[in-house]
Formats: sequence, C-alpha cells, structure tokens
Amino acid sequence: MGENRFDVEGWAAEDKSGVLSPFNFTRRKTGPSDVTFRVVYCGVCHSDLHMLRNEWHNSKYPLVPGHEIVGTVIEVGSEVKKFSVDDRVGVGCMVRSCHSCDACEKGFEQYCDNVVLTYNNTDIDGSTTYGGYSSLMVCDEKFVIKVPESLPFDEAAPLLCAGITVYSPMMHFGMTEPGNRLGVVGLGGLGHMAIKFGKAFGLHVTVISTSPKKEKEAKEVLGADHFLISKDENQMKEAAKSLNYIIDTVSADHPLPPLLNLLKVNGKLVVVGLPPKPLQFPAGSVIFGRKFVGGSNIGGIKETQDMMDFCAEHKISCTIEKIPIDYVNTAMERLEKGDVKYRFVIDNAEGFKAA
Amino acid sequence: MGENRFDVEGWAAEDKSGVLSPFNFTRRKTGPSDVTFRVVYCGVCHSDLHMLRNEWHNSKYPLVPGHEIVGTVIEVGSEVKKFSVDDRVGVGCMVRSCHSCDACEKGFEQYCDNVVLTYNNTDIDGSTTYGGYSSLMVCDEKFVIKVPESLPFDEAAPLLCAGITVYSPMMHFGMTEPGNRLGVVGLGGLGHMAIKFGKAFGLHVTVISTSPKKEKEAKEVLGADHFLISKDENQMKEAAKSLNYIIDTVSADHPLPPLLNLLKVNGKLVVVGLPPKPLQFPAGSVIFGRKFVGGSNIGGIKETQDMMDFCAEHKISCTIEKIPIDYVNTAMERLEKGDVKYRFVIDNAEGFKAA
Repeated sequence: MGENRFDVEGWAAEDKSGVLSPFNFTRRKTGPSDVTFRVVYCGVCHSDLHMLRNEWHNSKYPLVPGHEIVGTVIEVGSEVKKFSVDDRVGVGCMVRSCHSCDACEKGFEQYCDNVVLTYNNTDIDGSTTYGGYSSLMVCDEKFVIKVPESLPFDEAAPLLCAGITVYSPMMHFGMTEPGNRLGVVGLGGLGHMAIKFGKAFGLHVTVISTSPKKEKEAKEVLGADHFLISKDENQMKEAAKSLNYIIDTVSADHPLPPLLNLLKVNGKLVVVGLPPKPLQFPAGSVIFGRKFVGGSNIGGIKETQDMMDFCAEHKISCTIEKIPIDYVNTAMERLEKGDVKYRFVIDNAEGFKAA
Repeated sequence: MGENRFDVEGWAAEDKSGVLSPFNFTRRKTGPSDVTFRVVYCGVCHSDLHMLRNEWHNSKYPLVPGHEIVGTVIEVGSEVKKFSVDDRVGVGCMVRSCHSCDACEKGFEQYCDNVVLTYNNTDIDGSTTYGGYSSLMVCDEKFVIKVPESLPFDEAAPLLCAGITVYSPMMHFGMTEPGNRLGVVGLGGLGHMAIKFGKAFGLHVTVISTSPKKEKEAKEVLGADHFLISKDENQMKEAAKSLNYIIDTVSADHPLPPLLNLLKVNGKLVVVGLPPKPLQFPAGSVIFGRKFVGGSNIGGIKETQDMMDFCAEHKISCTIEKIPIDYVNTAMERLEKGDVKYRFVIDNAEGFKAA
C-alpha cells in the first residue's frame, strides 16, 4: 500500500466492448467517518452488463463495476461509531448523498439529487467511483450495512441490490398483507428474490413467465405457488382479477395491459426494470378497478438494513452461482442469455489473494 | 300515473345526433326496498354528452341521461329503513350491484362486475335504465344518498359524480396530508371540485392548465394557491419536484411525463379522465422517485355518503349554472366548448311541472 492511498486490485473494462481485465488503482485512506473493508464477495448485477457496454450512454472508462459488495472490516475512522474491525459489512449501490434534502431526511437517499453511486459516478473529491470487482472498499459508514452472522456471506451480497430493489416497493406500497396474492413477472435475480420475500410475508405467489420450462424450479425450488405462462392467452384470461400485487422485474419491452388485467380491484403493479420503450396502457385499465402502475429504484440505507435483518430472521438469501474473478467475462455472456440461477457472485477473497 | 307503473316525463335522445326532446316513459312502482322521489335537480355530466352521441359505442336509444340526481322522497317501500317521505335524497351513477362479490363487500360497488348504471344499462328485470333528466326516480335504498339539509340542493347534485370522482381517489390513495401540495390538471366540473376538496384537506393547491385566462378565477374564486401554464416549459421546469399529488381530470390526450416531472419523491398521479389514446411514460419517470400513475372511477355508496357529509361539514358544493330543461341542447353545445362554470344543473322541478 502507498503512503497516502490504498493500492487496490480490481477488474475493469477499458471501453464499450465491456471486456473486463485486471486493473490496479488506489482508494483514499480511511477518513474519520470511513469504514475500510476487504471485499470477500461481489454480486454481478445485470446493470453491470449495461454499464460495461455503455448501453445507458453514460459509462466512463476504465469502469470497475460491482454494487453488491460484502467484506470484512480492516480499519475504521476515528469518528466511526457503528462498526469495528472484523465486522461483516456490505455496500450496495450508493456511497454518498447530501443528507440535507427532503429525500435524504426521510431515509430515501437513493432519490437524493446528489447521490453518488458506487461506481461510474463522480465523488465529492472529483474522483471516479470504482465498484466491488476489486479487493478493497473505503466507504462512509452512513452507507455501510451490517451483514448478520447467520446469513451466508456469499448469498447475502446480492441482497444489496437484487434484494432491496424488490423489498423496498413491497414495503413502501403495502404489498405485504398475509393471504394476498402476488404476481412476479420475470424469474431472474430480482424475480427469484420477490418470490422469497412474498412467501416470507405470507403471500400466495404466482410467477408470470414466457418460459414454461421454468415452472418446475419456480415451484419446487423457489417455493412459488402458481405459474402462469404469459403467452398463453387462455391461462391469462382465466387468471383475470386474481392478483392483489404484481412486481414486474422485466427490463425488456413487454405489454402492461395483460398484466393489469390480472389485478383485482385496488391492485398494484410496480415496475423495477427499465424497458427501453415507454410504458403504455389505456387509462381505463387503471381507472376501472382503481389500480396503479408504480415504480421503485433500489432502497434507502435504513430500509436496506431492515431488509438484511428481515432476511436473517426469515432465513432468506439469494440463490447464487459462485465464480472466480477470471470467469467474469464468460459469466457476462451467460448473464446476457439469462443462463444463471439466479445471481453470479464473484469470490473476491479467492481472486485477489495478493491484496 | 298508471296502475302498475309510474308515468314519468323525461327528455331523451332518439339517436346519435344526441339531440334531446321530451319523452314520456314509465318506471316500476315502489318495491319493498325502493325509494321513490320527485327529481328536483339533475347535473349535466360530460359523460352524458359522450353517451348521447354514442361516442363510447354502447349507447341504446331512446337514451335518458343524468346521474347527478337529487330530489324529495314521495314514497318508500315497506322494507326501507333509512329513508322517509320528504327526505332530501340523491342518486349518482349506480342503481344496483350484486352485493356478494369482493368489491361489493368492501363497499366498492362501482367495481362490481354486475353493477347497473343509472342510465343506458339493463336492470335485473330486463328493462333499460333511464336517468335523471326526468321527473321521478325509483331506486333501491342501497343506492340512495342522504343530502344534508345544510347543502344547497342544486349545488349538491353534481357532488354525486363530479364530487365523488375526485374525492374517492384522494381518500383511497392518501392524498390528504395537510400541508402537502396538490396539482389539479384541468379546470372543469371535476377539477374545480378537486380544488375545493384540496383546500378543505389543508393542501396547497396548484392548478395546471393550458389556459392562462383561467388563472384569476382559479385563484380568486375557487381558492387555488398557484397556477401553472402547462405549455410554458420554463414554468413547468421551475415547478419540477414541487408537488406531492396530482389529480388529472383531462379526458383529451395529453402527455404525462411533464406532469410526472412535477412530482416529488413518492409522488402520486391519479387520472380520472379517459383519454382516447393509451397513457404513455418512460418507466424511469416513475422508478426514479418511487412515483405511481393510478386511476379511479367514481366511488362506492358508503364513501359517497361520507363525501356528502364532508361537504356539509366543510360547506363545500359545486359551482353551477342552473338551466331549464328546454335549454339542455344549448347547454350541451356550450359544454362541448368548455363554456360552463363549472357544471350545468337542470331545474327539474321547474321543467316537469305537470309530473
């Protein structure tokens, strides 16, 4: 390590080919309110793939992705109160916000206009943020989450994005009343977590998917109660007005009216994916039945901690495939094809032994 | 009056020209659970105009419109408990529902699959329902509302549709927190009631309109706090993230993204108009800020009574222009041009003296 900066090993993309390769960089030394931790695992989010390939047109290279980061504390700043060396901690999608706006004051830091994301953003010192495909993180304690001892460390990492992204809207929009019926559209990293949270809340869970071949696993492994094939018009017609809530995790373009038809009176549909084309539905499909189409983006720090504690209490974690860092480019190709059950998690402790 | 049926005077359209003219018909005699009342006033709703001209492609002629009906009870059935002769009563958009479905059980009769609307619907005896552009109504007491003595009778009539249509979503979706900021899009029958309810709930109310010439009256007469011209991009930009709620009453096609931009984090936009084209907005415009776009259709019977009582308590009623029945075709032409402040109300007692 250098005198004024930590030397860090990571993997970065150098251009919009998105191909990752080893990349050495530095991070600031532990400041008074910082927590520094050795990264042990980092989840691979689909948005990492979008960012690597500049698909959202704002990527800055070199780009070190990763915002589902867990690890072990090695140093804390003089003013840090909540964390000590050897604590199991995590950092999700954000590393800083203003703490004075309305959103911050209410604990919704993710909607702060001055939020600094964990990678590909400009921090207050002008540096570019680098994510968790790396050996070491330094983060203000306000954005550090405690990972309960009882949670498997590797399976906890993706909770920091995939988990909170479905947990936050379920809590905020009141999609948790036991006995009610939840539909989950799309069975990827987010969708499989929505099933698990749904069951933990005591909901009846229906998976809505284009792939009949996913039915067996959705029910037998993940615990879904029912499976609907969205392309089967008869099935969809029979299921009309049968659901109280829908979490729509699909980020490809898809029609909303068939999903809105599945909702009962007062039904709620929340999108957490970002399809390229605008959402579109007739006003009547929400007016007749007093429904709504809402959206939600990750979650605030307090609710992320609440979710982590809820997961420990209910023994919920992500279903993952653990990979070494040098498999990450292959993992991205598989992720693009939806070939993962249900989240790749990089074993950083293994990959960055030298660190 | 005939022996087995009441003779009723009304005005009907005979075809999709929509022109109204005198039309005599009969209604059933007062059944055991029926309330029969002399119609004193009936509001003219914009949907009457759509129905008269078959613009929703389901009109049956002869068509007697009117679903904002108030009057004085002249007879009650043997099983009627809540009403007596001489009571001031009203009937809104519905006259029957199944009372056994989930929606009915929860008091949302308007979303019952077997709801019978006040006109142009088929009642359980196979007859076509005729509305309040007539001298007399017979209605099951379950769908009859008490009109408090303190409310001006003529100004109370439009509460039964225009009033409840904005009150119901404000209550259901929690758009009533004092000090919060409400936007009202469109300043017609519904919009002017949204201003009045907003002020009664203690909200700061902004009217969003295409017509600068409405500003003075919106503020000085109706009590709005602020006025935004939706076509003025600078004004709209300055007002970004300033509102907690929006009630959108416009039934012409119009873009939602500029309205969603006005919402703060956790903002709510509810549409109560039915534009011909689908609603359309990028997923990001609800995801970034955890917003939603909801819809709502009139209101249930219990909440209509609650609204009527709320109006009495807060001295709220519609701002109307009272007309004789033989002015109704001219009124429709003016309504089409938006030339009414803010609701025409037919003086039935005057127009049907013979009844």
